[in-house]
Amino acid sequence: MIPGVRPQQIVISEFRLTRRVQFYETDAAGIVHFSVFFRYMEEAEHAMWRAAGLNIAPQDASVGFPRVATSFEFLKPLHFSDEFEVHLRITRKSTRSLSYSATIEKDGEIAAHGTLTVACISTRGGDPMRSTVIPTEIADRFEVAPSEGTKP
Amino acid sequence: MIPGVRPQQIVISEFRLTRRVQFYETDAAGIVHFSVFFRYMEEAEHAMWRAAGLNIAPQDASVGFPRVATSFEFLKPLHFSDEFEVHLRITRKSTRSLSYSATIEKDGEIAAHGTLTVACISTRGGDPMRSTVIPTEIADRFEVAPSEGTKP
Amino acid sequence: MIPGVRPQQIVISEFRLTRRVQFYETDAAGIVHFSVFFRYMEEAEHAMWRAAGLNIAPQDASVGFPRVATSFEFLKPLHFSDEFEVHLRITRKSTRSLSYSATIEKDGEIAAHGTLTVACISTRGGDPMRSTVIPTEIADRFEVAPSEGTKP
Amino acid sequence: MIPGVRPQQIVISEFRLTRRVQFYETDAAGIVHFSVFFRYMEEAEHAMWRAAGLNIAPQDASVGFPRVATSFEFLKPLHFSDEFEVHLRITRKSTRSLSYSATIEKDGEIAAHGTLTVACISTRGGDPMRSTVIPTEIADRFEVAPSEGTKP
Repeated sequence: MIPGVRPQQIVISEFRLTRRVQFYETDAAGIVHFSVFFRYMEEAEHAMWRAAGLNIAPQDASVGFPRVATSFEFLKPLHFSDEFEVHLRITRKSTRSLSYSATIEKDGEIAAHGTLTVACISTRGGDPMRSTVIPTEIADRFEVAPSEGTKP
Repeated sequence: MIPGVRPQQIVISEFRLTRRVQFYETDAAGIVHFSVFFRYMEEAEHAMWRAAGLNIAPQDASVGFPRVATSFEFLKPLHFSDEFEVHLRITRKSTRSLSYSATIEKDGEIAAHGTLTVACISTRGGDPMRSTVIPTEIADRFEVAPSEGTKP
Repeated sequence: MIPGVRPQQIVISEFRLTRRVQFYETDAAGIVHFSVFFRYMEEAEHAMWRAAGLNIAPQDASVGFPRVATSFEFLKPLHFSDEFEVHLRITRKSTRSLSYSATIEKDGEIAAHGTLTVACISTRGGDPMRSTVIPTEIADRFEVAPSEGTKP
Repeated sequence: MIPGVRPQQIVISEFRLTRRVQFYETDAAGIVHFSVFFRYMEEAEHAMWRAAGLNIAPQDASVGFPRVATSFEFLKPLHFSDEFEVHLRITRKSTRSLSYSATIEKDGEIAAHGTLTVACISTRGGDPMRSTVIPTEIADRFEVAPSEGTKP
């Protein structure tokens, strides 16, 4: 191994999760309840971390990643048993936070757009939450995705 | 009754809901899961409609109010058994949509800020959702709240 | 104070919680999802503990009360905005566990019957969960309700 | 085609679903909330129906399958990110109802045992729910699983 060159590791900037709508996620309007889209986005985030070799919330964690801001725009509803894809992309990375965008797609059409920003906090010392720098072994696994517009 | 003068009715522009955190709303980080704040905001919206003498989703409804955009910023976490208040205000009213802002407060401190826009659709004719004008008997019950800054 | 006679304290054997169905609790069949009835029963349990002056899960707890068995029979569905009552009763009390029955009633008719047994565990020493004796200051607040059949 | 011999079709009596615990399914005790196990069991049921070529709740359904009774016993907790298996088996089949048992297993150990009985109702004519015979094209796809004890 060449000194100073770290062994190759996975660096991730986007992730695609395929998922099916479960019955308990629908409401009396016959569609997925809007609050559930935030769960889909987080599910994709956690799967992306696993794909990067990381667990975002291990039981003995010294840091945590609380959500500081999030949004969704809804274009088309999802129904029971629909198969859909969450396309998650890292849009911003700072020393203390990560931002994602998410697109929910069904049959090639966009059902919803979301955003999510999470901050790194120390889990030592209890409340109140104290912001801290994202540990290198985590930060090194992620990078900002090229903007959608620049894709071939 | 004077002709042309409608009988007095309730017109609402804001609402305060007091609520306690339930155990099933917390997550393994020991705090309310971020997706649940959207349920709190909607719970306050539906209570505001009831206070205005309306049910937002009766079983035989001819119109529905799907959510088209929503967001939350999180400032302080809520824990199991915390009592908090949702302060919901109407921020915009058009012929076909309503927008709200929500502040989640605990012990006089702001825990989170949310926004929500809902559109009026016809429930006749099935999918796809078709935008329609908010019926007068609903629209007349709501008006935009004075902006926070202009309060005495 | 007469020696040996403890100051009066609340001893509880049953509790009634009034609640309204929230939209996010319904499913595409237009009724409350069956899994939500277990949340209603637990909500009534926690309110009963608060009525007894106790918090079932304080942040610094030395004991916890995981659920060990539970059931529900469903007789009539609940719909969005329905007001209903959870009638919770203590049916068994041992040194290490408590059992409850719950009746969900709407407009004087029974919608569902549930049961729940919880065990007392030590939260010290991490997993695996270790059964322990219910602390006296908790156990003294609860007693088995007289059986329904013996009521006048 | 030989007279009297029906074309081959799938007949199912059990199903195994592999699933991972999502963060929003955990609670402040650090484990999966007990109400969520009922969702896992239903998720396996619906996947079993799909494996049999059926959708348990299509949008234009003439019959529905409300839950009439269910239970769970909890032996070991599940934590965030745990991978587990739901082993669902048909334990009873009548003209108007189906009963299942479910075992939740993690790392070869049983975490929980559940049961579920669903009835067939007509969705025509609105409330109240009216029991009806399970249509042949559904009933023919399912049969009772051999009892666990008789397995080699």
